[in-house]
Amino acid sequence: MTTAWLEQIKWDEDGLVPVITQDFKSRRILTLAWLNREALSLAAEEQRAVYWSRSRKKIWRKGQESGHIQKLHDIYLDCDGDAVCFSVEQVGGIACHTGRESCFYRKLVGPQWQTIDPVLKDPAVIYQSLL
Amino acid sequence: MTTAWLEQIKWDEDGLVPVITQDFKSRRILTLAWLNREALSLAAEEQRAVYWSRSRKKIWRKGQESGHIQKLHDIYLDCDGDAVCFSVEQVGGIACHTGRESCFYRKLVGPQWQTIDPVLKDPAVIYQSLL
Repeated sequence: MTTAWLEQIKWDEDGLVPVITQDFKSRRILTLAWLNREALSLAAEEQRAVYWSRSRKKIWRKGQESGHIQKLHDIYLDCDGDAVCFSVEQVGGIACHTGRESCFYRKLVGPQWQTIDPVLKDPAVIYQSLL
Repeated sequence: MTTAWLEQIKWDEDGLVPVITQDFKSRRILTLAWLNREALSLAAEEQRAVYWSRSRKKIWRKGQESGHIQKLHDIYLDCDGDAVCFSVEQVGGIACHTGRESCFYRKLVGPQWQTIDPVLKDPAVIYQSLL
């Protein structure tokens, strides 16, 4: 695959762009993560969500520890070329490391953030293979 | 409204966080923009999408020029507290300055970005009141 499409993206000064990941069926927003050229290239090649972990400073194949991989359906680019969207199938129905469907599980109600989603699986169980 | 909820957000070194804006009904992702404390506070107060324009370095009330305002339904925060989501009603059905429904109108097909959305209204018409 040629890489001209990668160069049409306006990577920021750190070589990154934000990526919104959305469930292809329910259209629920699952997470906001970051990409560098390598991560996006790998995602397109492997047809699964691959991100750049800013905290760990390395390539992060979503689900590599939890098994909750995200099968990639489509990749979108915005008008300014500085934001990407992944449309995915979330294996296991859990995108968040807290064991919830989505990372966006807090909603502003009055002047407070309220948790509106249940924990579907205890993170201690999800990540037990690492112990 | 107290501002403790604003302090639960992990603002980056520039005092910003990314915000995903999604249509409350169709759940289509409309745009990715940025917030500072003032913009988010104003959005919550005015119940409409208010952003921080990084290019113009000022508060940006979405629709102030085009009329395509976004009525705010809900505000969500992610697990790490460093990304926000607005659920909105898009007045006029056009979120993008190109005259399209969504800013994410390009899809990767093979090694190329293909435009998949029609222009619903000529930007020259949308912004004619500015001429």
